[in-house]
Amino acid sequence: MGMKVGFIGMGIMGTPMVLNLIKAGHQLWVHGRRPESMQPLADASAIACASSQMVAENADVIFVMVSDTPDVEQVILGENGVIHGAKAGSVVVDMSTISPTVTKAIAAQLGARGVEMLDAPVSGGDVGAVNGTLSIMVGGKPEVFERVKPLFEAMGKNIIHIGGNGAGQVAKACNQIVVGVTIQAVAEALTFARKNGVDAAKVRDALMGGFAGSKILEVHGKRMLDHDFKPGFKTRLHQKDMNIVMQTAREVGLALPGAALVMQNLNALMGTGDGEIDSAAIVKVVERMSGM
Amino acid sequence: MGMKVGFIGMGIMGTPMVLNLIKAGHQLWVHGRRPESMQPLADASAIACASSQMVAENADVIFVMVSDTPDVEQVILGENGVIHGAKAGSVVVDMSTISPTVTKAIAAQLGARGVEMLDAPVSGGDVGAVNGTLSIMVGGKPEVFERVKPLFEAMGKNIIHIGGNGAGQVAKACNQIVVGVTIQAVAEALTFARKNGVDAAKVRDALMGGFAGSKILEVHGKRMLDHDFKPGFKTRLHQKDMNIVMQTAREVGLALPGAALVMQNLNALMGTGDGEIDSAAIVKVVERMSGM
Repeated sequence: MGMKVGFIGMGIMGTPMVLNLIKAGHQLWVHGRRPESMQPLADASAIACASSQMVAENADVIFVMVSDTPDVEQVILGENGVIHGAKAGSVVVDMSTISPTVTKAIAAQLGARGVEMLDAPVSGGDVGAVNGTLSIMVGGKPEVFERVKPLFEAMGKNIIHIGGNGAGQVAKACNQIVVGVTIQAVAEALTFARKNGVDAAKVRDALMGGFAGSKILEVHGKRMLDHDFKPGFKTRLHQKDMNIVMQTAREVGLALPGAALVMQNLNALMGTGDGEIDSAAIVKVVERMSGM
Repeated sequence: MGMKVGFIGMGIMGTPMVLNLIKAGHQLWVHGRRPESMQPLADASAIACASSQMVAENADVIFVMVSDTPDVEQVILGENGVIHGAKAGSVVVDMSTISPTVTKAIAAQLGARGVEMLDAPVSGGDVGAVNGTLSIMVGGKPEVFERVKPLFEAMGKNIIHIGGNGAGQVAKACNQIVVGVTIQAVAEALTFARKNGVDAAKVRDALMGGFAGSKILEVHGKRMLDHDFKPGFKTRLHQKDMNIVMQTAREVGLALPGAALVMQNLNALMGTGDGEIDSAAIVKVVERMSGM
């Protein structure tokens, strides 16, 4: 049976996710900052709302998919925000990638009003959003996770409950650490090969089957060999996510020297106007450093 | 038809590799620094020789499998070394992991006497040596590679010709860069999860299928979760290999900040007497840095 579902954030991710929820038979109330962003969904039977509060007043589960930590705070806690409309017993599900610490604070504020919260950041990008094949890492109470699971299944494939509030964001941060530092690993190795006059493509082939083998060596390694940095995952967004990592590491008192190095290289790419290309472009910083 | 094959270095790698060559029907002349190390192979029909020179006088293809760059220089160029016995037209195949630069220099000296050389470092460890499933990365002339290929096939499975003299060593160095820096990536991510109170095993599960997925996340990630550092690949040997990387990077003028970080962490492990455990123990340095 269809549920009353809210969705806030009509961007490149949110729009196809809403379409998949409608396809699965749910009634949708939606809100986007730009009114015109809601039109395609209104055409597909969603009800366009003037505010996040109005979405929350109508729905039992309210998804949020916006850009960064301050956006989520604004949409949930700000003027005309979700918290002013959400009924006791309803669930707010934040699918944005934001700070785990802020996530816990928002969950506490919602909890004080009897509103549940899950953090459920995704990986898989806009292609995964369109195809309904996102990976979804979820933090929050297990019973709340079970309630929302059928809706997650309309949007994703690999859906894992990690732990309490914030745990989904921590898992997503871990994902971005591994992806970033492994890009650095592959970038240094392929640059080492080239600088020594050796065919980097052959090196990549040789390394693929062994302990050096990874999805990053396969996909990002190819991008580096071809110097083809069509995204993929944009440098600007990877920088935003690594900023969450470094901020959280600072808060908990944890040194992450590899992640810090990646952060610097993403900063360097922003400095050369490379924010809109894939973050495999870290190889350009490695090359540039030594004048290649 | 069996070939006349020499093999120098009767260690944990060399001994099973010789047994596989004998099994494939070749006549072996062998030399090890410790005379008793040759006994098991003499029992299996190999002819024990008093020096590397004597091996070279009898064989058409002479394999070398010793520890480090100075050992290879000693065995090939030193007193009673291969160069004093090798016939014109014979091939010296160094399967040790050593400096690409020194490899090129040795190849040039052998070449001046009409002796061919291949560098053919391996990955796959002692298990791969016993089972004949080593990955072999080869540098040298293509036609010399083709001559030796049937012998490689008695010892390994994934046998790739990378380029000219030294190219095999460059590929192996690239392998060790990727493995080392990816270990750092996984170590930082799992430590970040733990420090934030999140189940690191669940995070590893969640990350496995996506872009963060790698052989290192699977194998070394598990070792880190269990704090079970039975090798695997010893810290001491990874340090030796990363030293080759950093030395070569210095020679060619290339900055490798990620590899340099890994080198420091391997140094730190040596300082705590952890040389004989698996280099996944890098996670211990990451933990220790922040008092975990």
